[in-house]
Amino acid sequence: MTTRTQPARQTPAVTGAMYIAGDAVTGDAGTFHAVDPAEGTALEPAFRFAGSELAARAAELAEAAFEPFRAAPVEQRARLLELAADEIDAAGDAAAQRAHLETGLPLARLTGEVARTTGQLRLFAATLREGSWHGARIDHELPDRKPARRPDVRQRRIPVGPVAVFAASNFPLAFSVAGGDTASALAAGCPVVVKAHEAHPGTSEIVAAAVTRAVAASGLPAGVFSMVFAEGPTVGIELVTHPAIAAVGFTGSRRVGLALVAAAAARPVPIPVYAEMSSVNPVFLLPGRLAEAGTELGTAFAGSLTLGAGQFCTNPGIVVGVDGRGLDRFTAAARDAVSASAPAPMLTGRIAASYADGVARLAAHPGTEVIARAPDPGRPTWGSAALAVTTAEEFLASPELREEVFGAASLIVRAASAEQLLDVARAMEGQLTATVHAADSDAPLASELLPVLERKAGRILFNGWPTGVEVVPSMVHGGPFPATSDGRTTSVGTRAMERFLRPVAYQDVPDALLPPPVRESNPAGLLRLVDGAYTRD
Amino acid sequence: MTTRTQPARQTPAVTGAMYIAGDAVTGDAGTFHAVDPAEGTALEPAFRFAGSELAARAAELAEAAFEPFRAAPVEQRARLLELAADEIDAAGDAAAQRAHLETGLPLARLTGEVARTTGQLRLFAATLREGSWHGARIDHELPDRKPARRPDVRQRRIPVGPVAVFAASNFPLAFSVAGGDTASALAAGCPVVVKAHEAHPGTSEIVAAAVTRAVAASGLPAGVFSMVFAEGPTVGIELVTHPAIAAVGFTGSRRVGLALVAAAAARPVPIPVYAEMSSVNPVFLLPGRLAEAGTELGTAFAGSLTLGAGQFCTNPGIVVGVDGRGLDRFTAAARDAVSASAPAPMLTGRIAASYADGVARLAAHPGTEVIARAPDPGRPTWGSAALAVTTAEEFLASPELREEVFGAASLIVRAASAEQLLDVARAMEGQLTATVHAADSDAPLASELLPVLERKAGRILFNGWPTGVEVVPSMVHGGPFPATSDGRTTSVGTRAMERFLRPVAYQDVPDALLPPPVRESNPAGLLRLVDGAYTRD
Repeated sequence: MTTRTQPARQTPAVTGAMYIAGDAVTGDAGTFHAVDPAEGTALEPAFRFAGSELAARAAELAEAAFEPFRAAPVEQRARLLELAADEIDAAGDAAAQRAHLETGLPLARLTGEVARTTGQLRLFAATLREGSWHGARIDHELPDRKPARRPDVRQRRIPVGPVAVFAASNFPLAFSVAGGDTASALAAGCPVVVKAHEAHPGTSEIVAAAVTRAVAASGLPAGVFSMVFAEGPTVGIELVTHPAIAAVGFTGSRRVGLALVAAAAARPVPIPVYAEMSSVNPVFLLPGRLAEAGTELGTAFAGSLTLGAGQFCTNPGIVVGVDGRGLDRFTAAARDAVSASAPAPMLTGRIAASYADGVARLAAHPGTEVIARAPDPGRPTWGSAALAVTTAEEFLASPELREEVFGAASLIVRAASAEQLLDVARAMEGQLTATVHAADSDAPLASELLPVLERKAGRILFNGWPTGVEVVPSMVHGGPFPATSDGRTTSVGTRAMERFLRPVAYQDVPDALLPPPVRESNPAGLLRLVDGAYTRD
Repeated sequence: MTTRTQPARQTPAVTGAMYIAGDAVTGDAGTFHAVDPAEGTALEPAFRFAGSELAARAAELAEAAFEPFRAAPVEQRARLLELAADEIDAAGDAAAQRAHLETGLPLARLTGEVARTTGQLRLFAATLREGSWHGARIDHELPDRKPARRPDVRQRRIPVGPVAVFAASNFPLAFSVAGGDTASALAAGCPVVVKAHEAHPGTSEIVAAAVTRAVAASGLPAGVFSMVFAEGPTVGIELVTHPAIAAVGFTGSRRVGLALVAAAAARPVPIPVYAEMSSVNPVFLLPGRLAEAGTELGTAFAGSLTLGAGQFCTNPGIVVGVDGRGLDRFTAAARDAVSASAPAPMLTGRIAASYADGVARLAAHPGTEVIARAPDPGRPTWGSAALAVTTAEEFLASPELREEVFGAASLIVRAASAEQLLDVARAMEGQLTATVHAADSDAPLASELLPVLERKAGRILFNGWPTGVEVVPSMVHGGPFPATSDGRTTSVGTRAMERFLRPVAYQDVPDALLPPPVRESNPAGLLRLVDGAYTRD
């Protein structure tokens, strides 16, 4: 079980396959190709979508694998995650190169994404071994309690069942086939059926092949992992409504996310959908910091905005500052940097078209002024950055200005006072992130702002930019609606596992029949809440 | 803050009042009376329902109280819970006596329910002081990491906002105005607006007055607690859809629970609804144990079934045994005990009518035989126990037999084999509880059954009866749909708090601005996950 297998070192081929419970399978529905968005040309080979039956088969094989998977030793599950990480690392150069062709994202960024993806799998392996995820609790019997004996009650968490994961377009590795949703569901003991994103099918095939090899090497049932392509909404919805599926992870648009939420709620047995949807990630520039470093902040902001053609869930779409010279300098520097920024290919033609529409809406709004536009790339699959300004008064009166434009567009909101900046914060919808730039002298205003932002965002950051999500146990990549469909959860960081676990209590169950985490003896030294106190005894 | 106030010792009056943010208020909509179900007579005084505006006012005052409530020291919140417990204990005799009149439940049971209610409040106070509920995590900066510095990231959980609690009819204290939902929401730092159950308004008034006194004595804002009466579904739905409400707790019927879930999901900003709805709480009798003690088990089962006129969420509505002499003896003893059981008043005339319908449906089903019926009480608000039998084959073919009949009716399902007993278990919907009666010789079958039941129920108990829910940290009172709307949660036990908390991450936030649980120093000795290891340092 703990033998380290040697991952395949030969360059993984892209053949047009999906993977269903260990088997490379060609789809039985429509044909499609990946498109190189930099050139707008189709990439070989052809792929085929899965029809309803193939997708259902993946779900059924996941269900068949669930009991043996959850019954297997936790160490075997940790090994699966590590084997998957090793296999993906071995295929990493090929995956990054294919992803570069399929997404137009810079190769260096994609190489980093491979490391992030495999680091995340290894972090979950370590979390499994640490063991507190079991949530083990024991309350011993009180035989002499009056008027009646108190029974022995114990609790642990178990996996919910097979999980459908809908991969994102914008992180072809870290939020895709073996991304955070897949890693955390497998860590929890849930088989996974990935609905891959059709914008990077070759990358998806390479990664799915790597995970499939890892499952085989782990000795776990092949059904713990499948990856399918599905055209349009129909087969995806069928997956969400398949009786074998117990939960859903999704990263993408608000429209599709809400459709999955609605489908899951309408099932005979509703299931949770963890959808990460939309966020404008407001940045608040406090006066003291603006006075110190307005120009420097403006340049840095433009860098964060244009990174990866602005195609981050945590892209800073709104900047709020208090009027004054500092904000003028910020605005001028951001304007210059955005004007000088290079156009870049976007992930898909549809995303580029939607971005162009969003920028046009922003420009046409009577209350905004576009102050910077990067050169027109003259190609339909490319995008160029845009920057507009408005007043806080206008922003507060125009809810449509709070909507996300996915891409490198941002809006500077000029507040007349600190109080108005707070009003803008209070008017925000739920967000993945909220950023504050503050000097020491801004502490009183920052203290007022912080509790407002806690209610709005999953992550609050100071004196930085939101476009990086560290994979650490403390991370929250989530936030109140509409940032996600369930603000109690995170899709990055080790708490992501909790989405796929539920507690079960055992009352007066004989020790020999109890699952190991809640037996009287604790040879693994798990952290457990015993009679109200945490202990590893 | 820690001064112990002397709770009022005079007998609390029932005046017909609601409580809105500290004020005793008379409703402005229709008039109603409690009904003594034992006699079928109306009880004085008259009560009045809240109209839409009064209910909205409670929600708005809850929102206004939220920031100061969550910002107050945790010790002050713990004191609020203890003060409420003290006040309810002081008013406990009056509350139990009024509840006895209003519900027809035995006085001794209601006195026990007072103790359970106040014990639960004190358990949450202790949990607050223990502190691990903060979920504090720290991942320190790695300044020298390549290619870029890793920022400092910290996490804690914060309350979600005001909670609407819909009280149950069947536990006029423990699942009502100051029951598990209210206690856990207040513990989490969420103001509460209770929609009281109109079947026990006097009890509700006494308890609401006690909680209101506790809020005043605690020095916390009055808006942290309100209690209203609401007629029909309209005002209740308005409460669920009020923008100030962030989550809902509910215990009651599947029909109403699902209506609240749908209303919450249709909001512009959807919110979670924790609805405990319906469960038949299957009991599995394994052959070895039946052979040892069939008669004894049959008698004990009838006692559990008829307790409180069967009006428990965890009432054993289905018993599954393997055919044989042991099951014959069980059946005969249960039949005799049910036939000899005394009729009892039910909580309301509507519940009694619905119970009579359910028993009639069970009797009319072509695949069942009613083998025992307690004497007809001859009063429309009373119920008498009923016991029917069927075969596993019939049960598996008849999904309608899996539906809850709320009251003292149960169905014995005779399985032809251990395999068929497992099939019946696999066919069950989600449950609050599943019970196994097993001798040592039954261990192999019990081992096969246990993983099936883990997927079906929130609590699994051996060699006991499900109709008692201990208030201990390990308890799970929850379970997969339709037992509840969210099988990841519990409404009893200290994990109930987690329903009303969400995680927030803090990245590079200066120590002085961080909330105390995640500052570098840890004077309270909170259990925190620091750089991947749990510590109180």
